[in-house]
Amino acid sequence: MTFVLAEHQYGKAESRLVRVYRDTPRHEIRDLTVTTALRGAFDAAYLDGDQSAVLPTDTQKNTVFAFAKQVGVGAVEDFGLALARHFVADVEPVHGARVELEELAWQRVVVDGVEHDHTWVRAGQEVRTAAVTVDASGEHVVGGLKDLVLLKSTGSEFAGFLRDGYTTLADAHDRVMATSLDVRWRFAGTDVPWDETYAGIRATLVEQFATRHSLALQQTLWHMGTAVLEEFEQVVEIRLKAPNKHHVAVDLTPFGLENPGEVFVATDRPYGLIEATITREDPPPAGEAWRASAGLA
Amino acid sequence: MTFVLAEHQYGKAESRLVRVYRDTPRHEIRDLTVTTALRGAFDAAYLDGDQSAVLPTDTQKNTVFAFAKQVGVGAVEDFGLALARHFVADVEPVHGARVELEELAWQRVVVDGVEHDHTWVRAGQEVRTAAVTVDASGEHVVGGLKDLVLLKSTGSEFAGFLRDGYTTLADAHDRVMATSLDVRWRFAGTDVPWDETYAGIRATLVEQFATRHSLALQQTLWHMGTAVLEEFEQVVEIRLKAPNKHHVAVDLTPFGLENPGEVFVATDRPYGLIEATITREDPPPAGEAWRASAGLA
Amino acid sequence: MTFVLAEHQYGKAESRLVRVYRDTPRHEIRDLTVTTALRGAFDAAYLDGDQSAVLPTDTQKNTVFAFAKQVGVGAVEDFGLALARHFVADVEPVHGARVELEELAWQRVVVDGVEHDHTWVRAGQEVRTAAVTVDASGEHVVGGLKDLVLLKSTGSEFAGFLRDGYTTLADAHDRVMATSLDVRWRFAGTDVPWDETYAGIRATLVEQFATRHSLALQQTLWHMGTAVLEEFEQVVEIRLKAPNKHHVAVDLTPFGLENPGEVFVATDRPYGLIEATITREDPPPAGEAWRASAGLA
Amino acid sequence: MTFVLAEHQYGKAESRLVRVYRDTPRHEIRDLTVTTALRGAFDAAYLDGDQSAVLPTDTQKNTVFAFAKQVGVGAVEDFGLALARHFVADVEPVHGARVELEELAWQRVVVDGVEHDHTWVRAGQEVRTAAVTVDASGEHVVGGLKDLVLLKSTGSEFAGFLRDGYTTLADAHDRVMATSLDVRWRFAGTDVPWDETYAGIRATLVEQFATRHSLALQQTLWHMGTAVLEEFEQVVEIRLKAPNKHHVAVDLTPFGLENPGEVFVATDRPYGLIEATITREDPPPAGEAWRASAGLA
Repeated sequence: MTFVLAEHQYGKAESRLVRVYRDTPRHEIRDLTVTTALRGAFDAAYLDGDQSAVLPTDTQKNTVFAFAKQVGVGAVEDFGLALARHFVADVEPVHGARVELEELAWQRVVVDGVEHDHTWVRAGQEVRTAAVTVDASGEHVVGGLKDLVLLKSTGSEFAGFLRDGYTTLADAHDRVMATSLDVRWRFAGTDVPWDETYAGIRATLVEQFATRHSLALQQTLWHMGTAVLEEFEQVVEIRLKAPNKHHVAVDLTPFGLENPGEVFVATDRPYGLIEATITREDPPPAGEAWRASAGLA
Repeated sequence: MTFVLAEHQYGKAESRLVRVYRDTPRHEIRDLTVTTALRGAFDAAYLDGDQSAVLPTDTQKNTVFAFAKQVGVGAVEDFGLALARHFVADVEPVHGARVELEELAWQRVVVDGVEHDHTWVRAGQEVRTAAVTVDASGEHVVGGLKDLVLLKSTGSEFAGFLRDGYTTLADAHDRVMATSLDVRWRFAGTDVPWDETYAGIRATLVEQFATRHSLALQQTLWHMGTAVLEEFEQVVEIRLKAPNKHHVAVDLTPFGLENPGEVFVATDRPYGLIEATITREDPPPAGEAWRASAGLA
Repeated sequence: MTFVLAEHQYGKAESRLVRVYRDTPRHEIRDLTVTTALRGAFDAAYLDGDQSAVLPTDTQKNTVFAFAKQVGVGAVEDFGLALARHFVADVEPVHGARVELEELAWQRVVVDGVEHDHTWVRAGQEVRTAAVTVDASGEHVVGGLKDLVLLKSTGSEFAGFLRDGYTTLADAHDRVMATSLDVRWRFAGTDVPWDETYAGIRATLVEQFATRHSLALQQTLWHMGTAVLEEFEQVVEIRLKAPNKHHVAVDLTPFGLENPGEVFVATDRPYGLIEATITREDPPPAGEAWRASAGLA
Repeated sequence: MTFVLAEHQYGKAESRLVRVYRDTPRHEIRDLTVTTALRGAFDAAYLDGDQSAVLPTDTQKNTVFAFAKQVGVGAVEDFGLALARHFVADVEPVHGARVELEELAWQRVVVDGVEHDHTWVRAGQEVRTAAVTVDASGEHVVGGLKDLVLLKSTGSEFAGFLRDGYTTLADAHDRVMATSLDVRWRFAGTDVPWDETYAGIRATLVEQFATRHSLALQQTLWHMGTAVLEEFEQVVEIRLKAPNKHHVAVDLTPFGLENPGEVFVATDRPYGLIEATITREDPPPAGEAWRASAGLA
């Protein structure tokens, strides 16, 4: 029988890089988790165990740390581009490189009303993400965020839905809506003010969630996505994934109490899961911008 | 500006279903986590907040539990097929349904050498997975497993690799190789002895890992994948994702001690990550067999 | 043989309660995880399976949700006291009650510079904790916080330490110091402005970490603890547990690069773990203030 | 004001040690996570930042890995004793040492019916634990296990319990009982066949869970604990902590279906939590056998 090595990639996952800038008394910090993956002429490693074309994952890790000094660490999108370009340009068997980055935010500690020069507290739960792919089809940058947890205590409904023989849910005209946003946006190019754009997109997502009256989480996602596309020209596609973190009003009538939307149990599982991909008309081709891994189902 | 709702799906994630069979004194148990997602004519929910075509995720969850009684829970692939077929056949706006299932294994407790009738202990760490997609293109089943942790203390090398200016790693001709396997396999049809095939594929993967001398984890994956394709006719494609869980020999020379491959530190991060997709020649089309979600990168 | 049921308790762990106040358009929210445990005349349940004195854990959960409406949810310390007093006063076999609470912080979303009335984003990672014990010895309240992640990029040393034959570490006169603080403080009474005190103690801990030059994490803990005792009269004892989250400067010399405290790898395990308990002279007796559970070692 | 450094300890947590024995073609493996903590004359480190008595946590880690070669790794209790004795005997300022160990189990892979010489699969989820304390009061060993997940599908009741105004639970005469056992047992001495005793205690716990008809989880714990004390002379005290992992029968009547104990939803939170400490009459003093850490509440 003949079998085909249809797709492959290999790399080093989750290098934990912290870069401190200490050129002035006011230090700066960037806290990244970096994953690199290489695609190219590596078939012999799979088929014959021949490593002569294989740049070790250990070397990929070293490159990450060396580049943190040589190139420096600014916006994650830029750092990812520098790494991906290097692997493709400088390592012969590499035809495509993918770099995935996550950034943890640190916030300056404030003492007596003044921001401290070299002390930070971890800020928020959300993680900024970037995925950079460089290959023959060009350079693709996908920005994003995950674990942005939002809740609104009113201004949300779910009613008038389809019913079948398994439906027991009642209409709700005023409910708690909570989610943990996972969003990725694809850029048309690489000449983007990354940090500013990130802050802007995050603000837009939050504002839409807050101010739009919601008839369903689906609708909220649509408004979030289109608002980002409207406001940020360089974004050509946005993908949103939002768990509906159910908050169920507790029935207090057995205890002689009313519960007009005041006491909720927050449940872990199951949860709703709403997803949407929104694009401009005729977006530029995505190449392998969205190909993260072997695509396990 | 005009924007396009290019892709969407919604459903209920991670319903925790335990099904007990108690028709005889010797009970049977199946422990599943079930995620359902529907695709179809739901654009109005996103664009206008119109829910009239939307079957609530709460109803999807009810259906999972009701089917556990009505249809019964046998192999996860079968249970997933039953659910997916129902959603597509019986709920008008649904054009495609995807059901993802995970099964936790329970092992009968043995008392005085005899298997107990109704008591189990959770077995192993690995999780059996299945992803069933039913839509206009047909019925697609992807079986799999994850978190299968394997280690071999010899019979593994990594040497003769490509070196560049960032390479410091030395050749290793005898090392510990450890991984946590994440594998998915696609079937050509749905008339498969699921439980037996699952057990067979798992055994094949483990056997290849154990008995093949390894020149690289890449090579081991190739042998695992092709062995499964050789032995199981109904499997047409297999995807493997394997972290290289590094075990680093500790340098004990500062303490006047040798360490000939005996004392290792097991590291958490970073780790190598090796991936491969292997197919038969001209496999049948996959349809949306591999489309899990909005494809965040 | 005779065996002794030396200690026991039972309860409901991790009830996830979200309380919304919606009396005005500007809603308020409290997000708690509540664990209750009862101690008392429950020996017969263990020895004979006699449940006649056992208030179900399900009832304890119901009580938590009912009290959220009846009593309301203000400071976690107050809510815990209300619950614990109820169990001891109103449920005859209960001799002692322990209520452990964790509070997740939510921060109002800001839109166009204005705080939103009913939308929040999850704030920070740290968790506010409280443990309330009511029994024959009185009422004991322990406040606290956990997962407060702090980092300073200079102003920290570790040098001049004891060396033996297993020591390879070099002196460090300028290093990154990072930790994830886990602190508990015991109050002398229950007439305390809880929310204000919590905010004050948190600020004191952070300020000490930031402004004290550190010769060791041990010394930093001592200064944190004593500063809290100095500033907050009602606190009579403080316990601190601080992992030393190592940030190791990467050796870049193989790549011809210097690394003067700029590029670090953040490691997961192992980590240092420094602990200290600091009290006033002759603190009032703690009773069972610190007894959380069966005390597994 | 004068403050008192009432208690303190410091050490290195979670060194991940894998020890391979390869003296014959049939290798052996031990996979440990080791935490060491030292107690003694370290006040100056806290009060003055004076490190001259402080053996670095880095040295403690080195000692763990060096001892894995010098002393070897057999039963976790023995390895812990060797380390703790060394710190107390050989490092002058140390008055007490505590070593906590967790062991992950590996099971030999079977190929063609034969156990493989050097390949293993991670076995089960449960973790074997040990906590060794050596100080002026003597040597104390606490064995244990955690995350042993058990379920019985019948043979369990909960009925006839106390009711108050917050009680809504109905009597159950046949239910699913599931738990994840967390148990520790204290030995009277150190001359114990550790591996054999561990296997025996685990089997006894499982057997009691399986074969005892249960009127409450409390009663099951009592029988588990006393059975261990009866069978294992060297054990003088046992502490059990068992979550009641609720499996709630799903109400299928809205769908015209009966559910006679067949379809359950497994819930995550909240869960019952039952705890008990059982001792022999007049057990030998425990010293600091149970003191794990700063005792945060």
